[in-house]
Amino acid sequence: MTRTFRMVLQYDGTGYVGWQRQERGESIQGLVEAALARIDGKAVTVHGAGRTDAGVHALAQTASVRLDTTLDPSTLGRALNANLPPAIRVTAVDVAGDEFHARFDARSKTYEYRIRNAAAVPPFERLYVWRVAQRLDLDTMQRAASPLVGQHDFGAFQGAGTEVHTTVRRVLAARWQRSADGLLVFEITGEGFLRHMVRRIVGTLVEIGSGRRPESEIARLLESGPVQDVARTAPACGLFLVRVEY
Amino acid sequence: MTRTFRMVLQYDGTGYVGWQRQERGESIQGLVEAALARIDGKAVTVHGAGRTDAGVHALAQTASVRLDTTLDPSTLGRALNANLPPAIRVTAVDVAGDEFHARFDARSKTYEYRIRNAAAVPPFERLYVWRVAQRLDLDTMQRAASPLVGQHDFGAFQGAGTEVHTTVRRVLAARWQRSADGLLVFEITGEGFLRHMVRRIVGTLVEIGSGRRPESEIARLLESGPVQDVARTAPACGLFLVRVEY
Repeated sequence: MTRTFRMVLQYDGTGYVGWQRQERGESIQGLVEAALARIDGKAVTVHGAGRTDAGVHALAQTASVRLDTTLDPSTLGRALNANLPPAIRVTAVDVAGDEFHARFDARSKTYEYRIRNAAAVPPFERLYVWRVAQRLDLDTMQRAASPLVGQHDFGAFQGAGTEVHTTVRRVLAARWQRSADGLLVFEITGEGFLRHMVRRIVGTLVEIGSGRRPESEIARLLESGPVQDVARTAPACGLFLVRVEY
Repeated sequence: MTRTFRMVLQYDGTGYVGWQRQERGESIQGLVEAALARIDGKAVTVHGAGRTDAGVHALAQTASVRLDTTLDPSTLGRALNANLPPAIRVTAVDVAGDEFHARFDARSKTYEYRIRNAAAVPPFERLYVWRVAQRLDLDTMQRAASPLVGQHDFGAFQGAGTEVHTTVRRVLAARWQRSADGLLVFEITGEGFLRHMVRRIVGTLVEIGSGRRPESEIARLLESGPVQDVARTAPACGLFLVRVEY
């Protein structure tokens, strides 16, 4: 009885090479596939909605897999957690339509980037935030981010060395907020993202928020197309895939 | 100008052999002493209020050290953080009285033990809680803990293989609460603690809370003196030294 299962996963990306299987290093995809092979005895391919980079975390990645099994979804979820490291947890499993594909069917994805704007970071959050020591102006970063919304050529924000058909993407929402415990959190929802796009946007917004670039910088880079003068890529550890919308 | 400095430290104990210097492995004490030696060029001994075990965390450990330096306290704090791994942070430094000794002068210490009472633990808290899958009754654990308060022979709760002059200790407060995000948190304040005492108390309270031992078990063990029938020692990762009172 071959069915398509939809899984929701949380993971701490520290120490992994990212979602996608690589020649070297442990990937989330590879570990989930290995766990399924142990449970079910067959080699399968798991498709994730977002190919998170090395060190990037997920609060709710969505993945799909075709399995010929009689296990019910909740038993499968428990068996997966018993065969995965504690840094990766399956939080939900259900049976999807036969044709469901986590990546191709995703309508949009939401990422969150967390910044601790302080001289020091508490030890317990050091792997989950970017520490920025220079004082950041949240209102300025909020205004600077608003041109991101809409369909634009995000080529200036693409990581070097990647080739894609088009660098045009549609961003549905982008906003900063201050969390209850004082983190600066940037949330961005888009139909698709280029490699390193969120981290390059955040790196640029932080330079704007600290006064090193003008507030108009995002708008200028969206006009410029692919150029190589964006700010540094913000570190992976502050980035979380928050949810995938279908 | 030799002065006594008081330092407050936070640390993620994962991967360290504990506060105290050991023959093998990295200790918090050893790393702080090494950082001071790099800053000041001299070998010094740092005294911590609580000798936290391997894997135990601290929100506010207090330590003292005699230093012949002209550095002011805040510069010393920044220099320490620049020379310590991000898992260890100095949150405050000040000049204490010449005779101040973090361990001998401590009036009491407060520890906190964190339990996630659920089938699965989110990846981001896996190093900071004990996951207990069996349902725990918080009210029962609260009632069972109340006999702990006062001066008692805690010999039944002492880790094996330790020798102390007396196993009598005074506990000032002990209570359970549910945190805002649903953790079960046991907070205990005492003038002194035996090795593994908090973790053995929590291990026993969890057996009471899950119905495997009677509610009267703590009272019985406080009467029994040193015996070897307490519950398993709760894992180190759930334990935090929360503060030291002077």
